[in-house]
Amino acid sequence: MELGFVGLGRMGMNMVTRLLDGGHKVTVYNRSPDKVQIAAERGAIPSDSLENLVSKLSKLRIIWLMIPAGQPTEEVIQQLIPLLNPDDILIDGGNAFYKDSMRRAEQLAQHKIHFLDIGVSGGIWGLEKGYCMMAGGEETVFHKVEPILKTLAPKDGYAYIDKHGSGHFVKMVHNGIEYAMLQAYGEGFEIIHAKSDFDVDMAKLSYLWNQGSVIRSWLLELAESAFEEDAHLDAIKGFVEDSGEGRWTVAAAIEEDVPAPTITLSLLERFRSRQKESFSAKVIAALRNKFGGHKIKT
Amino acid sequence: MELGFVGLGRMGMNMVTRLLDGGHKVTVYNRSPDKVQIAAERGAIPSDSLENLVSKLSKLRIIWLMIPAGQPTEEVIQQLIPLLNPDDILIDGGNAFYKDSMRRAEQLAQHKIHFLDIGVSGGIWGLEKGYCMMAGGEETVFHKVEPILKTLAPKDGYAYIDKHGSGHFVKMVHNGIEYAMLQAYGEGFEIIHAKSDFDVDMAKLSYLWNQGSVIRSWLLELAESAFEEDAHLDAIKGFVEDSGEGRWTVAAAIEEDVPAPTITLSLLERFRSRQKESFSAKVIAALRNKFGGHKIKT
Repeated sequence: MELGFVGLGRMGMNMVTRLLDGGHKVTVYNRSPDKVQIAAERGAIPSDSLENLVSKLSKLRIIWLMIPAGQPTEEVIQQLIPLLNPDDILIDGGNAFYKDSMRRAEQLAQHKIHFLDIGVSGGIWGLEKGYCMMAGGEETVFHKVEPILKTLAPKDGYAYIDKHGSGHFVKMVHNGIEYAMLQAYGEGFEIIHAKSDFDVDMAKLSYLWNQGSVIRSWLLELAESAFEEDAHLDAIKGFVEDSGEGRWTVAAAIEEDVPAPTITLSLLERFRSRQKESFSAKVIAALRNKFGGHKIKT
Repeated sequence: MELGFVGLGRMGMNMVTRLLDGGHKVTVYNRSPDKVQIAAERGAIPSDSLENLVSKLSKLRIIWLMIPAGQPTEEVIQQLIPLLNPDDILIDGGNAFYKDSMRRAEQLAQHKIHFLDIGVSGGIWGLEKGYCMMAGGEETVFHKVEPILKTLAPKDGYAYIDKHGSGHFVKMVHNGIEYAMLQAYGEGFEIIHAKSDFDVDMAKLSYLWNQGSVIRSWLLELAESAFEEDAHLDAIKGFVEDSGEGRWTVAAAIEEDVPAPTITLSLLERFRSRQKESFSAKVIAALRNKFGGHKIKT
């Protein structure tokens, strides 16, 4: 198929490469032109502005956005609206907040522009293995872009979920689950690491656990690889960023009165991982000293 | 190889079946004789007491125990000690507490009986797919029983971990990780289930997530199957038992001063799942009423 692609970051560039390998005609745009150049060398048609991108696409355009959620996505969509025609299709494959996607779908509908919110999972491995994709929007529009999804996904690795917002919603929850799974493995390995009675080879154990145990998973395969490279993870700081989906998942749980304690706690543990020192712990130490004369470290 | 097998429960019977299919000569004993009869029909040599079992095994015996942890395992081991000879090998494949296994290894060593603690994962699927096995004890003894492990495990699905107790220790942590992974999926699906804006087919979503997403795993494959059978799990009560390993993992974390919040919380959520009503919630409702006049339900 013919499509436009905006955003050639870590995910976007790999997706464009996979689309080009799959025989699609991809016109690309990215804020920094060096990425456009790289994509062009791989066979993409370069463009140097959103206007230029749109002008290079045949009618009934399909444009895939793969840019950071929030303001960057908002700006590009607002710039695209006057450039597009009725029945063009705009796809947001980024990690947008699902309520933003619902609002954007409504705004775009006023201009008769179709919108799909497609959650994309697979990280840097997607280029090779394919991306798992969850699509929200009108089902007829979903079917129109299926040839693109088929190329990007592994076998059966894309599906229509439900109306506008549902693709980004389930992708968000997917990431929430991921937070708690990562935390689960992290805690388990830390308990084993701390147990000085036993000298356990973590790479060997991760590999073993992936051979038929109940906790086998793709994340555990990544653990194998991480422990193989660095048996005690000496070169890695215990500092974990977050990019929003965990917060939104917790907020969604609260909005629906759903107790989601371990997903919530996994997010909080990320906050803790970024603190050099805990102010709460300072307060606790101070109060224990006040009421019980317990020693404080200064 | 020739071996004795004690305990023909859900796990034990399947393991014996897999061993017989693998050409091993297995003499079996179980407290209730009907299970012994079933195993005999599958090709095992029946016995009607531990004495009888031991007497039917050639010298340098190997005996595999697959019985409930705690008192049942303790009793069988104490009964076996006077029946066994130096250099016989006793294997505990159950979910024993690793400190019990360390103590038993020491006691058995006084009688020159070898001991291996082997954590076995794989549940009821092990018969078909093989069991993942983590062995603690002397490495030379481990090598002696390898032909048995090879038959029971999938390819590469068994390994020597470290000294006595380490097999059951890492199996225990494996189960702790499992608790938190289950909780992670549980919470994620509950958030989606509670979100009435979207009508999401959970079986389809689980299947989709297993095609290349970051959270793909064997547990998520089981979720596919559960949601296929019962789309909203209407026939299943939200009541979750525990069989000890989660408690021990939390205790081990505390013993090593390791913060393991989500594994701990996953255990506590199981306790909560078994309560019809929370007494803490009653206390909170009472106090809110006392200080703020907030309504109580009676």
